[in-house]
Amino acid sequence: MEDVQSGPAQVPLTIDNVGVRHLRMPLLVPDGAGGRQQTVASVEMGVELPSSLKGTHMSRFVEVLEQWDGEISCGSVARLLETLRARLGARRASADFRFPYFVRKAAPSSGMNGIISYDCRLTGEQDGDSAPRFLLEVDVPVMTVCPCSKAISDEGAHSQRALVRMAVRMDGLPWIGELIEIAEQSGSSPVHTLLKREDEKYVTEHAFACPTFVEDVVRNAAFRLEKHAHIRWFKVDVESQESIHNHDAFACIERTLR
Amino acid sequence: MEDVQSGPAQVPLTIDNVGVRHLRMPLLVPDGAGGRQQTVASVEMGVELPSSLKGTHMSRFVEVLEQWDGEISCGSVARLLETLRARLGARRASADFRFPYFVRKAAPSSGMNGIISYDCRLTGEQDGDSAPRFLLEVDVPVMTVCPCSKAISDEGAHSQRALVRMAVRMDGLPWIGELIEIAEQSGSSPVHTLLKREDEKYVTEHAFACPTFVEDVVRNAAFRLEKHAHIRWFKVDVESQESIHNHDAFACIERTLR
Amino acid sequence: MEDVQSGPAQVPLTIDNVGVRHLRMPLLVPDGAGGRQQTVASVEMGVELPSSLKGTHMSRFVEVLEQWDGEISCGSVARLLETLRARLGARRASADFRFPYFVRKAAPSSGMNGIISYDCRLTGEQDGDSAPRFLLEVDVPVMTVCPCSKAISDEGAHSQRALVRMAVRMDGLPWIGELIEIAEQSGSSPVHTLLKREDEKYVTEHAFACPTFVEDVVRNAAFRLEKHAHIRWFKVDVESQESIHNHDAFACIERTLR
Amino acid sequence: MEDVQSGPAQVPLTIDNVGVRHLRMPLLVPDGAGGRQQTVASVEMGVELPSSLKGTHMSRFVEVLEQWDGEISCGSVARLLETLRARLGARRASADFRFPYFVRKAAPSSGMNGIISYDCRLTGEQDGDSAPRFLLEVDVPVMTVCPCSKAISDEGAHSQRALVRMAVRMDGLPWIGELIEIAEQSGSSPVHTLLKREDEKYVTEHAFACPTFVEDVVRNAAFRLEKHAHIRWFKVDVESQESIHNHDAFACIERTLR
Repeated sequence: MEDVQSGPAQVPLTIDNVGVRHLRMPLLVPDGAGGRQQTVASVEMGVELPSSLKGTHMSRFVEVLEQWDGEISCGSVARLLETLRARLGARRASADFRFPYFVRKAAPSSGMNGIISYDCRLTGEQDGDSAPRFLLEVDVPVMTVCPCSKAISDEGAHSQRALVRMAVRMDGLPWIGELIEIAEQSGSSPVHTLLKREDEKYVTEHAFACPTFVEDVVRNAAFRLEKHAHIRWFKVDVESQESIHNHDAFACIERTLR
Repeated sequence: MEDVQSGPAQVPLTIDNVGVRHLRMPLLVPDGAGGRQQTVASVEMGVELPSSLKGTHMSRFVEVLEQWDGEISCGSVARLLETLRARLGARRASADFRFPYFVRKAAPSSGMNGIISYDCRLTGEQDGDSAPRFLLEVDVPVMTVCPCSKAISDEGAHSQRALVRMAVRMDGLPWIGELIEIAEQSGSSPVHTLLKREDEKYVTEHAFACPTFVEDVVRNAAFRLEKHAHIRWFKVDVESQESIHNHDAFACIERTLR
Repeated sequence: MEDVQSGPAQVPLTIDNVGVRHLRMPLLVPDGAGGRQQTVASVEMGVELPSSLKGTHMSRFVEVLEQWDGEISCGSVARLLETLRARLGARRASADFRFPYFVRKAAPSSGMNGIISYDCRLTGEQDGDSAPRFLLEVDVPVMTVCPCSKAISDEGAHSQRALVRMAVRMDGLPWIGELIEIAEQSGSSPVHTLLKREDEKYVTEHAFACPTFVEDVVRNAAFRLEKHAHIRWFKVDVESQESIHNHDAFACIERTLR
Repeated sequence: MEDVQSGPAQVPLTIDNVGVRHLRMPLLVPDGAGGRQQTVASVEMGVELPSSLKGTHMSRFVEVLEQWDGEISCGSVARLLETLRARLGARRASADFRFPYFVRKAAPSSGMNGIISYDCRLTGEQDGDSAPRFLLEVDVPVMTVCPCSKAISDEGAHSQRALVRMAVRMDGLPWIGELIEIAEQSGSSPVHTLLKREDEKYVTEHAFACPTFVEDVVRNAAFRLEKHAHIRWFKVDVESQESIHNHDAFACIERTLR
């Protein structure tokens, strides 16, 4: 059968990235305690295509994925990228994984456990023989209590859920759990899945004792990310689902550290 | 050219509804004050197809829509349904429109204006020669302050944005503005687009003086809908984006009135 | 601490359903071959609330979920509903689970395997001491080739991905795999994740030999669902992402069988 | 009343961008023929905040928007940015608008008209006294027929809807209509809203005479964008909703031209 893909390109331009997207499958992710947890990921994989070739071979991406060990970690994704480069005959390959990550968290007063999920994304890229580069993104919901509303009102203050979206490029170690911790220390309070009445009292009082604007949250998170020994670049975007409005407030800081 | 659609169906089953969906276009909607406002709608139109025919004629739906006067109102949609039935040779036709509706609202203390949008949907159905039936859906964001959190905490109470989703079948008159008013009176406070500091103080204090569970909001809205002279059936679903959790609380009441 | 929820309701209306929504967690689902597969689900749980009580106890839903065995199956969900009714003191409880279901499928010619995912939803409801009722929903992508385009064109015919959305109420047995099979036999061809060149030839030729309108697909699926011994009610909605349009065609059949 | 926002920041970091997001409102957009069309946009506006200030003044963004002339064009957005900088006392301001753009398009054979919509986004940024910079993004659906499937199959070839997503930075003139034209010439065929039978025959035959991989589409579009006199940078991402798969193929080219 004719191999149309291997024919010449009519328009001889190099394609930066070509491949498949929105493949959903069950995968494993390291749980930060030496074990691995089950999750479901949406996968994208691509390669660079030289100007001389008409098309890539889309089915080989799926073959490589089928033979991969299925763990969303830097080491395992690095092996996937190496295999993609070899199998597709490409100089550069990339892959990204979007998945929920789960943490069983104890309530602050009762100590009862509830599971909470965080949207994550790991992107790996391998260009020639240089070391693979990784980008880790984690979205962490927190609670914010408005300092202005608290200062000017005779009683109360509006509060809301806010989403701390972090993207980091790193040397080695930082992992999902560390980013969650950084974000959860940056708002008025972490959020929880299971709160008994004594916990709800604790969270309410704790959050009201620590009111934060969206500006405070983004600065608190950026300050902690700047101090992290292994982060080379980061971007934090905080989005607060204002309970007094039907729109959102946001604040964003991006820094190259080293 | 062969008219494949008019051939016989291999499987002679009546199709309840067949047509086109996700057509997006600029339309007009009555503003409740005698005028009309511009909006953009996603449109679905369908007809019943007898068991004897292989297919409907999809292009005719678009032709009918192109010739329609383009106003999302019961009278105008009734004319669209009549034309669809005639043009497609169908006993039953239906159409629905999803669109944002805009209200310019004054802040409670400063009186300054801001525009706020509400997601709406109007569905019309015409079966034979009986009167057309309409379903109106309106989603209204409100603010809720938690009564439990307020009662048990030394200071503060968690608050959040909640969405009051109403669906009503009516005799004649109730329209979007009335449903918005019903929902906005049912939570701890309406939300606003423009709030100066004096308004934020007003909204915070007003909301804290009127704490509501998601259960209170759904009951308050249902109580008002039950009393409305022209509503024959309704369903209210309130979804509260709990600021202390990463999940939502909800409550739902459905009633047939007459 | 005050139990605000147990106080009297200001507006004494029964609430049909109140609870929590959008809880995401890893769960298991029977794989149809005696085993179980890992997935991730978004969970909703609710109970009826009598007119006399101000509020339900939201944290108990999460406690019940934490102690549940975590399998999305009729038997296991029935036990969850029984526990919810007991723990919340409610006459009626309901729960629903939205999750991807995975099938490893062999390509038609090469026999090579690829994993494919289907969006599913299982809803269970228990009202008093009657048997629990279940609703199963499965969305199955298929390929359709247009019979009209094929008949009138000198060459080719437009094809596209279509989504067959089935909802069934059943006595006992039918499960996800059976519904997938019904849908995949109803279009021009099933879709696959991994297709080598010989498979792509097979799928293309097979699909072009079996052109189907959206009307054909919905009738083919309805015909098979009607013949199924254990289905009491069904609704099929087929949505075809027309490759010649920027909108979709749809067809829908709903039937009560017994 | 206390002006909490004007107090000192606890963590003295400059915030790159802070403001409001997801404000939805009716706006106007130039139609390319000297007139303006009605649309609905989701608006984001932000400013840089110096390290010395605790917070920005969120309500002023809404005030500025309320007083703005409401036209999504480079000239009008430049005036909005200037006003934002003055009103918020900021060195840098940005604003972006996401909106559907409508074109009434004639069918290729019958000449009958149908309206089609394209998702667009215009982002403007003004930093100090330098000229404002704009980014225009337009998403254009097209049809693709697979060259490989056509070459290897005895009959037919799979086709599908593909989305050509273009982002461009420009000197002056290129506008939405030009980008739509570039994308629609790059696939196997444009898509249409209204096609009579003679038009469907035309589109099918025309598309089959011009089969394109996702790689061809992205190269065709990139080639045309490179030749455009006023484009300084572009990124094209083509996503093809493969009718034989449940996942998508994609290809991406990004270039800095001058």
